[in-house]
Amino acid sequence: MVAIENTQIVLASRPVADIDPKTTFRVQKESLSGELGPNEILVKVLYISLDPAMRGWMRDVRSYIRPVRIDEVMRSADVAQVIKSNNTNYKVGELVRATCGWQEYAVLKPSEDLVKIKAFPGVSPSTYLGVLGMTGLTAYFGLYEVGEIVKKGGPNCTVVVSGAAGATGMVAAQIAKHVFGCRVIGIAGSPDKCDYLVKELGLDAALNYKSKTFFKDLCAVTPKLIDIFFDNTGGDILDACLRRIAFRGRIIVCGAISTYNDATPKGPAYYSALITQRARMEGFIVFDYAKQYGKAIEDMSQWIKEGKLQSRETIVHGIESAPDALVKLFKGENTGKMLVKVAEEDTRSRL
Amino acid sequence: MVAIENTQIVLASRPVADIDPKTTFRVQKESLSGELGPNEILVKVLYISLDPAMRGWMRDVRSYIRPVRIDEVMRSADVAQVIKSNNTNYKVGELVRATCGWQEYAVLKPSEDLVKIKAFPGVSPSTYLGVLGMTGLTAYFGLYEVGEIVKKGGPNCTVVVSGAAGATGMVAAQIAKHVFGCRVIGIAGSPDKCDYLVKELGLDAALNYKSKTFFKDLCAVTPKLIDIFFDNTGGDILDACLRRIAFRGRIIVCGAISTYNDATPKGPAYYSALITQRARMEGFIVFDYAKQYGKAIEDMSQWIKEGKLQSRETIVHGIESAPDALVKLFKGENTGKMLVKVAEEDTRSRL
Repeated sequence: MVAIENTQIVLASRPVADIDPKTTFRVQKESLSGELGPNEILVKVLYISLDPAMRGWMRDVRSYIRPVRIDEVMRSADVAQVIKSNNTNYKVGELVRATCGWQEYAVLKPSEDLVKIKAFPGVSPSTYLGVLGMTGLTAYFGLYEVGEIVKKGGPNCTVVVSGAAGATGMVAAQIAKHVFGCRVIGIAGSPDKCDYLVKELGLDAALNYKSKTFFKDLCAVTPKLIDIFFDNTGGDILDACLRRIAFRGRIIVCGAISTYNDATPKGPAYYSALITQRARMEGFIVFDYAKQYGKAIEDMSQWIKEGKLQSRETIVHGIESAPDALVKLFKGENTGKMLVKVAEEDTRSRL
Repeated sequence: MVAIENTQIVLASRPVADIDPKTTFRVQKESLSGELGPNEILVKVLYISLDPAMRGWMRDVRSYIRPVRIDEVMRSADVAQVIKSNNTNYKVGELVRATCGWQEYAVLKPSEDLVKIKAFPGVSPSTYLGVLGMTGLTAYFGLYEVGEIVKKGGPNCTVVVSGAAGATGMVAAQIAKHVFGCRVIGIAGSPDKCDYLVKELGLDAALNYKSKTFFKDLCAVTPKLIDIFFDNTGGDILDACLRRIAFRGRIIVCGAISTYNDATPKGPAYYSALITQRARMEGFIVFDYAKQYGKAIEDMSQWIKEGKLQSRETIVHGIESAPDALVKLFKGENTGKMLVKVAEEDTRSRL
């Protein structure tokens, strides 16, 4: 095998507030010999997952995962294809989900993190970064393990999802609506997204948080208050939902994308509603439920087949577009899962 | 019986921010005939309980209890003595705990809220507003039902209590320390209070939140982070403890006295630590556990007898001092339970 030129994007500096694609990241090239150690495989990255959590990985603070180091390849979950293998469990042409990061090629060793993707008719490999990846699993475990949806669900249960046109929110909203039959209200940032949520995903209502009448609108569509709030955004939306939280309401603190770029975030001013309504705010990290991924993926695959769970992606092209695309994610320019398509799958050798 | 002149303090206006004793309340006199309807009793108020929750009762918002109306007698829990009775279950001279409000006398009907106080050697009747009243019950159920102390407790469990020299905090800290054997750190607002917490209540450490080195001090005394935070204050103290919360830590949102007078409270900026540490913030109201009060009072009476639970009170005298004393409560001028002593118990007829 001749040497491969590998384009990588590394973290060049830690942003204090907004990400600046030009100074936060740096593009570099390395030459890969293609020689592999025992059990190693060489993969070509097909899709890179862009996630709000990436902003946290750039911060040098105590968290659930170590920060990305300066000059290190930016961390990401990816779908990749095996192009050379020293491991009989991984054959050339097979697809895997792995943490390759923002680069075109990676040499990987077997780990918990390296997972073969099962063939699934009619579903793109990129789905393993979206509905059937960490994104979908996050929605699933948030609702099941933190939101107590099994106990609370049903038509008398009002569920509000923020970032509902985003990758995780979309899955959470559909599960609550089409699996548990709840009354589901999505919150998003444009009339188009709201239309999509109601007309295509079948939610009961959708609200544009940028509207001047947002809080009044929220009151109007939550006459029985909010039993479960799946929060991806934080900020003023969280405050509005705290003001509408029901007795023993559950706030699933999944993300706070509206605050991740703030040097000093504003906290939820109305959190004392937790006292008066005996409500709970609880955070979680999907990794804690790794032992239950199999069951969750089985459930969600079934829901896709039954048409209860739709997938949607916003795809940008080329490894070098990753920094700009990440900024767009924080601006809410995506609908559904935000992905970078790095290379085409080679289907000649697909098993 | 001749007519009785009853001094009452009513809510005159709803404070927007700080309570102004002169404009928020108004003193008035009424004449009580002393005539009783069927099953009614006439009581003389001995002690009035002052509680941070009163600030919420003055606010005209959706809450766990209806707001006090303008021109209505200010609501409070009190210990009172029966001075006339039309009810064979309540004899003249007996002591009761009831919601009489800020007045010298009250005519009461039997209700869940009217509870006879059991004789208990060596314990003042005022204890039924403190350790053995809602105050102590709040500490008990907060730890047991929200803080999961039965599951988490023990020497490897670090518990931090804010407002630790206040009525509820003091009880929570002592239960965590002397019943569950946790490492307990109290937070209070003066060196004297901190001395009291360590030297008299036996806590492992106490910190003055007004110190410039408070956060550094907190880090130093929580080398294994904070497993349970019993929060009575909110504000910057809550943020500091969020920054030190442990994996799957529990924040018992009991009160937020530091924010109750704010027109627009500042929320906890570091609440996203709930995500990274899979932590939980949960509120509660003691009334929800009414069916378990008996067991709790039995437990706490036993701990008093065993010397595990001490009581302390700050007492002001005379019904008309209630408004000023409430302001002092918000300034943190009390140590232990803040009470107004309205009248002496008549021990001649004590049963």
